[in-house]
Amino acid sequence: MSGNSFGTLYCVTSFGESHGPAYGGVVDGCPPGLELNSEDIQKELNRRKPGSSRHVTQRRETDTVEILSGIYEGKTTGTAIGFLIRNEDQRSKDYAAIADTFRPGHADYTYWQKYGIRDPRGGGRASARETVIRVAAGAIAKKWLQERYEVVIRGYLAQLGPHPIAFKSWEDVGRNPFFAADDSRTKELEQFMDALRESGDSCGARVNVVAENVPVGWGEPVYGRLDADIAAAMMSINAVKGVEIGAGFASIGQKGSEHGDEMTPQGFLSNNNGGVLGGISTGQPVTVSIALKPTSSIRLPRRTINTKGAAATVQTTGRHDPCVGIRATPIAEAMLACVLMDQALRHRGQCGDVAPPLKLK
Amino acid sequence: MSGNSFGTLYCVTSFGESHGPAYGGVVDGCPPGLELNSEDIQKELNRRKPGSSRHVTQRRETDTVEILSGIYEGKTTGTAIGFLIRNEDQRSKDYAAIADTFRPGHADYTYWQKYGIRDPRGGGRASARETVIRVAAGAIAKKWLQERYEVVIRGYLAQLGPHPIAFKSWEDVGRNPFFAADDSRTKELEQFMDALRESGDSCGARVNVVAENVPVGWGEPVYGRLDADIAAAMMSINAVKGVEIGAGFASIGQKGSEHGDEMTPQGFLSNNNGGVLGGISTGQPVTVSIALKPTSSIRLPRRTINTKGAAATVQTTGRHDPCVGIRATPIAEAMLACVLMDQALRHRGQCGDVAPPLKLK
Amino acid sequence: MSGNSFGTLYCVTSFGESHGPAYGGVVDGCPPGLELNSEDIQKELNRRKPGSSRHVTQRRETDTVEILSGIYEGKTTGTAIGFLIRNEDQRSKDYAAIADTFRPGHADYTYWQKYGIRDPRGGGRASARETVIRVAAGAIAKKWLQERYEVVIRGYLAQLGPHPIAFKSWEDVGRNPFFAADDSRTKELEQFMDALRESGDSCGARVNVVAENVPVGWGEPVYGRLDADIAAAMMSINAVKGVEIGAGFASIGQKGSEHGDEMTPQGFLSNNNGGVLGGISTGQPVTVSIALKPTSSIRLPRRTINTKGAAATVQTTGRHDPCVGIRATPIAEAMLACVLMDQALRHRGQCGDVAPPLKLK
Amino acid sequence: MSGNSFGTLYCVTSFGESHGPAYGGVVDGCPPGLELNSEDIQKELNRRKPGSSRHVTQRRETDTVEILSGIYEGKTTGTAIGFLIRNEDQRSKDYAAIADTFRPGHADYTYWQKYGIRDPRGGGRASARETVIRVAAGAIAKKWLQERYEVVIRGYLAQLGPHPIAFKSWEDVGRNPFFAADDSRTKELEQFMDALRESGDSCGARVNVVAENVPVGWGEPVYGRLDADIAAAMMSINAVKGVEIGAGFASIGQKGSEHGDEMTPQGFLSNNNGGVLGGISTGQPVTVSIALKPTSSIRLPRRTINTKGAAATVQTTGRHDPCVGIRATPIAEAMLACVLMDQALRHRGQCGDVAPPLKLK
Repeated sequence: MSGNSFGTLYCVTSFGESHGPAYGGVVDGCPPGLELNSEDIQKELNRRKPGSSRHVTQRRETDTVEILSGIYEGKTTGTAIGFLIRNEDQRSKDYAAIADTFRPGHADYTYWQKYGIRDPRGGGRASARETVIRVAAGAIAKKWLQERYEVVIRGYLAQLGPHPIAFKSWEDVGRNPFFAADDSRTKELEQFMDALRESGDSCGARVNVVAENVPVGWGEPVYGRLDADIAAAMMSINAVKGVEIGAGFASIGQKGSEHGDEMTPQGFLSNNNGGVLGGISTGQPVTVSIALKPTSSIRLPRRTINTKGAAATVQTTGRHDPCVGIRATPIAEAMLACVLMDQALRHRGQCGDVAPPLKLK
Repeated sequence: MSGNSFGTLYCVTSFGESHGPAYGGVVDGCPPGLELNSEDIQKELNRRKPGSSRHVTQRRETDTVEILSGIYEGKTTGTAIGFLIRNEDQRSKDYAAIADTFRPGHADYTYWQKYGIRDPRGGGRASARETVIRVAAGAIAKKWLQERYEVVIRGYLAQLGPHPIAFKSWEDVGRNPFFAADDSRTKELEQFMDALRESGDSCGARVNVVAENVPVGWGEPVYGRLDADIAAAMMSINAVKGVEIGAGFASIGQKGSEHGDEMTPQGFLSNNNGGVLGGISTGQPVTVSIALKPTSSIRLPRRTINTKGAAATVQTTGRHDPCVGIRATPIAEAMLACVLMDQALRHRGQCGDVAPPLKLK
Repeated sequence: MSGNSFGTLYCVTSFGESHGPAYGGVVDGCPPGLELNSEDIQKELNRRKPGSSRHVTQRRETDTVEILSGIYEGKTTGTAIGFLIRNEDQRSKDYAAIADTFRPGHADYTYWQKYGIRDPRGGGRASARETVIRVAAGAIAKKWLQERYEVVIRGYLAQLGPHPIAFKSWEDVGRNPFFAADDSRTKELEQFMDALRESGDSCGARVNVVAENVPVGWGEPVYGRLDADIAAAMMSINAVKGVEIGAGFASIGQKGSEHGDEMTPQGFLSNNNGGVLGGISTGQPVTVSIALKPTSSIRLPRRTINTKGAAATVQTTGRHDPCVGIRATPIAEAMLACVLMDQALRHRGQCGDVAPPLKLK
Repeated sequence: MSGNSFGTLYCVTSFGESHGPAYGGVVDGCPPGLELNSEDIQKELNRRKPGSSRHVTQRRETDTVEILSGIYEGKTTGTAIGFLIRNEDQRSKDYAAIADTFRPGHADYTYWQKYGIRDPRGGGRASARETVIRVAAGAIAKKWLQERYEVVIRGYLAQLGPHPIAFKSWEDVGRNPFFAADDSRTKELEQFMDALRESGDSCGARVNVVAENVPVGWGEPVYGRLDADIAAAMMSINAVKGVEIGAGFASIGQKGSEHGDEMTPQGFLSNNNGGVLGGISTGQPVTVSIALKPTSSIRLPRRTINTKGAAATVQTTGRHDPCVGIRATPIAEAMLACVLMDQALRHRGQCGDVAPPLKLK
């Protein structure tokens, strides 16, 4: 399987470029009989849509999904679900200036060197616009996981640039344009973003994602671990530079007597392991945290080289998110959903006859 | 491909349990013509071997590798390389006490619930002893990468429990039992470990790994990214809870003007991206950092449940590493080597006719 | 990877149903820099197009391909190539009568039992119309193989029902609506088909495919053999019930002294092995022969059951090919092309540094 | 996944050479809780063992299997099952004469050209001795399929050289050294083989395999079809040049009204489709037939070239099967078992919630 697909049984394939006619995706392996229509997908796409506030890119895309196969009379048939999202607002001229130079921190340079050719319009295949496909595929996985296992997958922005944002409530997440779980911080974050945008610079972010009600037993030791699959899925999101499960890097400073989650007949007493032990889900919430780097396309002049190898200066004038992390919450949720669904199917493939011996709680 | 294999073209398969007769591995896809003998593998195995200092498990294993196939007259033939590492020191009685209880923070519980059956001796398949296979497979990858591309892969312990250890020199790494890159810290670390061991507790660690001379162009967007594969490989190592590439979580607080690595005709001016942009290697060193949680098997009493679901107390008396991170350096190097080798082969599969247009430096 | 994809490095994914809005495909792993436009694909699609003679289905489809990604300024970029072929002529009412019964020899019954749901319109996913995707993917592979290695892949109809058709010339193949390699047989075949069509019955066919100039060395022992991949690819074509390589079933009656292809410094003296030995290409033409069963949708009444399990009679009135084998030649060529291309890329991934020691001829 | 593994969820990996120390295999994905010991595997290995009659190779191998992992207290644990079969009777000197020449019809030449190096002792990796691993992996699959679904997989020799052998009874198969299903033919076959052996020549064979009680619904359209997987698995067996499902090549001459298997509420009225429709099992017996070419290593002088490319004569004097097809029956059964098991697990992964709507019979 080549690089534009992932998943073993719930397999997602993606194609499309930022300034081509459309993005497309294929979800292969979805169980039959799931009620599904384009609205189920659209509502997730709308959560990551550009142009929804002044803090994100002003590119105007409706991101309308068209389902082309795999559904009959409102239900999945078990065959491959193909879908398309047309690009509507491509201002390719925005990119003429950068066709011959490489933006620092961007994939321009590596695509050029790897393939000897690249589509420079809007970053081509490297554009974060590709994540529409992930969100669509994740919407299907979310729905099935919810209906079949009552799994609930939710995320929030946990840090914006230098500003950590503590979790207050899930309800708050939908009340502000940042996916912050504490709406009382909104004004402060807006001021920060306004100043950042004005400066022409960009910033990083942290996004946390949690999957609740994941049954015990999902994940395949030793290389196909649930957490390994999650790590790959998250690190494959544009701009992600770090992934943590549970206590993550804080585990380094913990003692074993502090980190190891004790158990009682009622359940675990803590969740430092983030819902995964030995690569297998514990039944506790699966908790993931990711670091997103600052957008590489900024309006400030930067030293670089051009396609001839000569020194150059580049300054990006296109319509970019000053913080890609702001729209990353639904993307991270989607990737977690896809991984969980794949592992759910793999688990019942191998262990379909096993009833977990113990029921906690 | 099920959970005990990884890699697309350089494919590693592993089997074996802590207290079974042997661990075995299969490396499939190694290019033919590589000079290889068991000593090439043995020297890497010796670096992770137990019992090499008082700070690690006192289990006595020579970890002697026996190559069973894939080599003829001292060279790889291109066919699958099978090898075996016999277990020599299994004191299964050590584990009798824990056969019916679940150690907090350990995979005991999840294996039991997933499979309805588990081999409790020494953690069975969940034992970190499985990493011998990774180190062996990595030794072959390291050798090929070195000979074919002059890639050098090295790691070091960057933090031991609460003690960060700054990088001083690669030479220092081999001078102490911790893989610390600053040998002047050794006495301090030994005192810390002696006290920790005496306390019956355990601690976490951070390991950094660096691959130098990686050519530009390795990695497959958008899901098969080099960094995504690295993340999966690292997170699949026992006890790892976090993975960073380049600036990692520090990227969150960086501005784009700070993070984006500027370029000149002589090369990049910084390496916040850790040698990967858009999932493709940049030609700069690939830098990875991982967090290892504290060992879950500790001598302190811990609340838990037994296989009947009743409350219990567990206290581990077997021979365990008080910090699994100490022996993790060669393991992390090995996983990075396997991933790079796989991506090297995949790259030349697709792009074998492409000459990178630019030469920097 | 789930069932709607195949290939390791040259990976083809397909979606779409006979009476849905469109079929779509994704070709992932194509080397960059190949000149490619929709016409390159269209000309192959036109060869399998319905309605091209009275001997095939009269469904009217232009089978117009729309490329959506992976190409920039006329060249492949190395990213996934997505494409769409819209369905234009869906008369779903044709199928109302058969929505509740299972056509003997058709996948109606098995889809229903496997998935508990099926799209009955035109066979849904089981329709042979899916092969448009194979032909499109094969067109790209053919072009690359031709330009990079001068590989030429051609097929012909070797038997139509009871009528074997000997090979006369490749030129003849294009001169008749049957892909027969002896145009002098055309009238006879037309008469046979006219009578068959009139009778309401259908017939089987044999198609032979040959790939010339395949370099020595492609194929991965022992399970990933070139011939194993070819067998899977061919058997996955609708209606195929048998696959032969080289002498195929005739090998049973041969002696070793007759079958084993002798060699001289000028090359092989025969090609009973069909260009594959030990799963690896020999440098001789790769020769494949496939058996296609008679179309299962016929106008004659047949005993069957309905979706309630009760006895029923079915008679198909839609527009079907009386011999699916007639249009199978371009499909079989395409599948051979995809397999060869995948193995070509895999070979240079692992053995990119090997120069074959010997040059014959 | 590279060439020495096959299967998606029930994944088999193989290593080893004819004259190396051992063959080894890994079965990954076996469901937990299956009672399994080495005797279960050994009894299948004994069926393909060399030296069991004068009609097969006189190499003396006990083919003793040693299970190294994946089993605890007599049951599979769900972790990878590793096993080893040591080579005991290697007379490498037998092969000194052929180290520099290529046997016509053998993989000597292609391995040499592909890899630039080969292990010439006994055919190295290309030796049919590798099939011990398939038989061992198949023994596990057979046992699980039998216990879980009452699937019974049996094969027989259907043709020996020019002699077709009609099926009489399954009981007969075990009564003669040929796996012939008509023991009354034994003397005739023995005389044929004695004469053949004396002549120094070899012959081909046809083997039929049947899987009974396969539930309806296994197989993944459109590329991962059950029959496509069977075709690949069979064609990957050494010396196989053709594969048929159901009526196979005879389908070419059939009319649709004859071929399409009619149904009644009691079941199908015929089985021309060999238990597979649209790539999915029908519930009828899965019937497969394969063609095995004559052994390429014969005692008669043959024209060939040597590793320098010069003309040479080769005459094989090692201990070879004059008809590899004789011992192929257990191998073909094993491959069918592995494929069915993999598809069984994949099916319940995706469709675990589907109850087939209809019960026939």
